[in-house]
Amino acid sequence: MAKQEVTAGVDIGGTNTVLGLVDREGRVHLDLSIPTHAHEGPETFVARLAKTIAEMAKQTTATCDLKGIGIGAPNANYYRGTVESPPNLGWKGVVNLVEMIRRTHHLPIAITNDANAAALGEMIFGAAKGMKDFIVITLGTGLGSGIVCNGSLVYGADGFAGEIGHTIVDPDGRQCGCGRKGCLETYASATGICRTVSELLCEERNESVLREIRPSELTAKTIAEAARNGDAVARQAFEFTGRVLGLKLADSVAYTSPEAIILFGGLAQAGELIFEPTKRHMEESMLNIFRGKVRLLPSGLKEGNTAVLGASALIWNELPKR
Amino acid sequence: MAKQEVTAGVDIGGTNTVLGLVDREGRVHLDLSIPTHAHEGPETFVARLAKTIAEMAKQTTATCDLKGIGIGAPNANYYRGTVESPPNLGWKGVVNLVEMIRRTHHLPIAITNDANAAALGEMIFGAAKGMKDFIVITLGTGLGSGIVCNGSLVYGADGFAGEIGHTIVDPDGRQCGCGRKGCLETYASATGICRTVSELLCEERNESVLREIRPSELTAKTIAEAARNGDAVARQAFEFTGRVLGLKLADSVAYTSPEAIILFGGLAQAGELIFEPTKRHMEESMLNIFRGKVRLLPSGLKEGNTAVLGASALIWNELPKR
Repeated sequence: MAKQEVTAGVDIGGTNTVLGLVDREGRVHLDLSIPTHAHEGPETFVARLAKTIAEMAKQTTATCDLKGIGIGAPNANYYRGTVESPPNLGWKGVVNLVEMIRRTHHLPIAITNDANAAALGEMIFGAAKGMKDFIVITLGTGLGSGIVCNGSLVYGADGFAGEIGHTIVDPDGRQCGCGRKGCLETYASATGICRTVSELLCEERNESVLREIRPSELTAKTIAEAARNGDAVARQAFEFTGRVLGLKLADSVAYTSPEAIILFGGLAQAGELIFEPTKRHMEESMLNIFRGKVRLLPSGLKEGNTAVLGASALIWNELPKR
Repeated sequence: MAKQEVTAGVDIGGTNTVLGLVDREGRVHLDLSIPTHAHEGPETFVARLAKTIAEMAKQTTATCDLKGIGIGAPNANYYRGTVESPPNLGWKGVVNLVEMIRRTHHLPIAITNDANAAALGEMIFGAAKGMKDFIVITLGTGLGSGIVCNGSLVYGADGFAGEIGHTIVDPDGRQCGCGRKGCLETYASATGICRTVSELLCEERNESVLREIRPSELTAKTIAEAARNGDAVARQAFEFTGRVLGLKLADSVAYTSPEAIILFGGLAQAGELIFEPTKRHMEESMLNIFRGKVRLLPSGLKEGNTAVLGASALIWNELPKR
């Protein structure tokens, strides 16, 4: 029997790095997780990563044929094959990750950031299969985005395109981690909705179960639970988040006229709580020629493996071109 | 001697339609203008247009070989080859312009809106030669935009992408012709700066030569002249316009990370009066990873022929593909 062609999908996180061998249909043949131990520095990390990939290939050598390696990592640059001062890894300067892995693995290797990998994952395996123009919005700690136009991911002149989370909602708005004020991700993200709850608890006098939770312990999940139980402040927080996000997604539609926008990540798990107000405000705020045309969809990737599937999709997407 | 290959560039305006035969280097071999007479309806117009192109080809038959026809028109759809309810032509519904011209001219023919044609004009003949990622902003009566990513114009799922003029500056802001409020073009356009002057004349008590001009007679050119003569209100108007435009261009950079943004059209003629504040506010508002990287450039197309060059570029850009 012919061996199954697979690529390795690698998602480098601040705590753990998750790996999987994924075939062209998105089936994961082997997956595992190693601690990132970023403090040991990039050289040590890459040596362990390369060894782990080699072991995975060896372990599946009877059934799988490894064709390439795709990597999702914070602050990754697709063009240069680098990660550049990734904040949650603590590595300084520019790390030539692709070049370092290529020393031991003579295969096609590519790297991009998590949000772009998610977009390619949706295109190859998920909700955007067969689409040529779409946007994936990752609502996690921040707001990441991957923009696909005419079947290709938009990297831009320097490889850093797709920062919709850092478009400005209000120049005098909330302080953002990027140093500026009022970025979309300070409102529309798991962190953003927690800030919104704090603001509402201060402005309103409603009773709310959220008043019993320490702000430091508040999560998007807790707020979603409270909203499902009818808590007025929690519901208001989702309405506000959907309004801000919907307005900015109407802008996104004016830029690239996507067929669909896919909401991905922790806050998107809240389902209709976030989809309904976002869709409603997006439609209300949209230029008439676009109204009723753009679908707002949940991720089509299986829970748990999404980051690995995205990273694998990155390199599957390259392989026909080589 | 071999004949010179040319394409016909056609710019359909509300009053006049301008035509030119343009070679691959952007030289115009013959150009002329016919009245559009839109009230006669699309059939009559297209018959006159097709006849004019045939006559131009005949007149230059000794030296030129017509290879294709490119058309810039309001509300044009590239995918469908149509113009759809163009407001300044008064044609109702969908007019299959490309199909109608193809009845008499068996050549490659393509159509797009004026802003997209301008972007292709800059890419093939102008300031964006050799660039793969850039945005052209047309500051005319409204604000048009053409976005190029990875060497291709972004048309989006429905062919109507690139409506940066209809991204929202302020949801409670100025009434826009599109029926919504606070669109960028109500601030950053030749019309927008006139509205800003009216607002400033009401809010401020400064003396200003602009108080002597009827609002209906105010133009971007008059405001530029007043600003050059040191008029404080006129200067404030350019500062305000540059602030609003610069902030939104910083958002544009976050979307597609262009190498350059090119300002085109009537208001861009004001030169440093509009470039300086726009550039300054764009840099101030930009995410740090993009700062200092994006050039703000004037059009590289010769005055007068810009629309014809853009329309011609549209079809030159297609020809290698066919």
